[in-house]
Amino acid sequence: MMASDIHHRTEDFRKIYRSALSDLKEVMGTSHDVLLFAASGTGAMDATVSNLFSKGDKVIVCCAGKFGERWVDIAKAYGLDATVLSAPYGEVITPAQVEAALAQEPATKGVFVQASETSTGAAHDVEAMGRAIARTGAIFVVDAITGLGTMPLDIDGWGLDVLIGGSQKAFMIPPGLAFMSISPKAWKFSETATLPHFYFNLKKEKKSGDAGESSWTPATSLILALAEALRYVKQLGMPNLIENAQLLARGTRAAVQALGLELFSPGSPGSSVTAVKAPAGMDSGVIVKEFRNRFGAIIANGQGSMKGQIFRIAHLGYFDFADLFAVIAGLEIILHANGHPVKFGTGVAAVEEIYSSVAVKPKTVSV
Amino acid sequence: MMASDIHHRTEDFRKIYRSALSDLKEVMGTSHDVLLFAASGTGAMDATVSNLFSKGDKVIVCCAGKFGERWVDIAKAYGLDATVLSAPYGEVITPAQVEAALAQEPATKGVFVQASETSTGAAHDVEAMGRAIARTGAIFVVDAITGLGTMPLDIDGWGLDVLIGGSQKAFMIPPGLAFMSISPKAWKFSETATLPHFYFNLKKEKKSGDAGESSWTPATSLILALAEALRYVKQLGMPNLIENAQLLARGTRAAVQALGLELFSPGSPGSSVTAVKAPAGMDSGVIVKEFRNRFGAIIANGQGSMKGQIFRIAHLGYFDFADLFAVIAGLEIILHANGHPVKFGTGVAAVEEIYSSVAVKPKTVSV
Repeated sequence: MMASDIHHRTEDFRKIYRSALSDLKEVMGTSHDVLLFAASGTGAMDATVSNLFSKGDKVIVCCAGKFGERWVDIAKAYGLDATVLSAPYGEVITPAQVEAALAQEPATKGVFVQASETSTGAAHDVEAMGRAIARTGAIFVVDAITGLGTMPLDIDGWGLDVLIGGSQKAFMIPPGLAFMSISPKAWKFSETATLPHFYFNLKKEKKSGDAGESSWTPATSLILALAEALRYVKQLGMPNLIENAQLLARGTRAAVQALGLELFSPGSPGSSVTAVKAPAGMDSGVIVKEFRNRFGAIIANGQGSMKGQIFRIAHLGYFDFADLFAVIAGLEIILHANGHPVKFGTGVAAVEEIYSSVAVKPKTVSV
Repeated sequence: MMASDIHHRTEDFRKIYRSALSDLKEVMGTSHDVLLFAASGTGAMDATVSNLFSKGDKVIVCCAGKFGERWVDIAKAYGLDATVLSAPYGEVITPAQVEAALAQEPATKGVFVQASETSTGAAHDVEAMGRAIARTGAIFVVDAITGLGTMPLDIDGWGLDVLIGGSQKAFMIPPGLAFMSISPKAWKFSETATLPHFYFNLKKEKKSGDAGESSWTPATSLILALAEALRYVKQLGMPNLIENAQLLARGTRAAVQALGLELFSPGSPGSSVTAVKAPAGMDSGVIVKEFRNRFGAIIANGQGSMKGQIFRIAHLGYFDFADLFAVIAGLEIILHANGHPVKFGTGVAAVEEIYSSVAVKPKTVSV
């Protein structure tokens, strides 16, 4: 980010842009085309609907939290005929539910889901869903904005036709860039789709990307940062990045349970975020606030109706075991100070157990 | 840009976001609402059409170059019924042409224009156009991505209903942020407009902005940079920033004419960019390339059919007289080396004359 800015219509920038696209494709592990947008992740969600669907198209939306609701809102904004499969916050939509809905409506053109529903810490089984959807005429659209780099995602093998990511999560740079991979099956949809769109134009972006350019002025500083982050992720190895996140998720879950707290999404062990219920009678906002005031650390409150009920600890990108030891120790102090019975060290010990149980540690992201 | 990144759902960030919006409003000198988007300027152009118009709406597009063509493409993408007023590259659409087109089609709902058409260096008389449009039911939509901060723009006084800007021009920070001001007359259009949209949602963005937030994840690093740039522009004074750009434009025009070159847009003295015809028999790409190779300086080639015919020198943001002296001296050397007769110092002298003719220099942007 601190490199000097660079003009975007130069050979130097084209070289960087091309390598960012090709490195992104490599770390995503896909043969599909990869596109980049100057927008936040929601922009790529919008782009998928406005470029690949037509008004009245039948689609299935898996909705298990705030970001699932965003898919519902986008479908509504563009006049899609959406069947919404809803799960209570903290739970997930099952592949069987998706299969049943597909069987009931064979004309379904698309299925929308979050790989990891950041608002609740729930993770969907996109592998089983993808394999089922691949046998139908529908395309599978996966918001992996927090899932990419934190959970295994076999884009080509599992039939993830559109997979959406954002710059600010596992790639560890500031927000402002969205990207997606798009399968040949999904590209075919763009030939017949009739919804209007301009800024987000997948075909134009593909053509521009092949020429080493973005269709519109790119967010140059973020592209430079992304190129650097991708170089680093390639060196580290995407499987290591994912394994690190998965181990941190296991450690976090073990720790909070050892402290007598309850997981909000117990059925989603490998999510990019762990959501935890606040102890009875304690507002989760107090925990969030004390983390900030005592330790300058940011953990997240619940969103929407979950505000005050849960707190969320992320484990993606630069998070490491050293960070987790500190976060759990801090949590112990904050819980203790607010009247929740804590034997100091209990949570940290649980993380240490997880750490020690792994024979071969993934290379971590310490720099 | 080098400040550490900040989480966007914190009171600290809300404070910065609010102050960026209010400073933006102040330097734009308008009472209208101001909205910010994580996108390049084209995103705000798209947002205007998809939020304020309906399919089949009659509109007038002033097209005098590549960015005018972008308005034509957007109108087409969204199914507007556009009357296109076209001027050859280097020339402008006149207010009289707009008035005549409005008289011919009283049901016109919008007029689209570039304040400064960056591809040719042409500047439109948006004051006269705005006053004429204000008397009709149409709204006036002005792409001022390069115009803002380089030419006087009285948003409220001239009836500029929607005025669009981008981060990377006069505000001197990297691309990736777009913004717009929107008048009460334009807001009314949002009540009846029916085109679908999601990521770009003016009403939602207004509501979020009032709460110190963006609707979707904001490009935090760019917002921090914008806040800093705006503090600086306020300190400098927007009229000084504009006067500086206008003086540089005058100096550039005087210099290239003194060197026997021909202006591409002689009728647009106050544009944010000066476009110059390459000497007969010389490819303008040679001049662009030698600026880069000899001096590490970037000037622009013509775009589209103008490539090889013209070169363009910008004068916005951090450009100062010291830069201009260097650029013109460099131009003299490059022209001379490529067989165009030059008496060294002639162009620079013309800039010095302009500089000396101004009794009170505007505070310049040197830091």
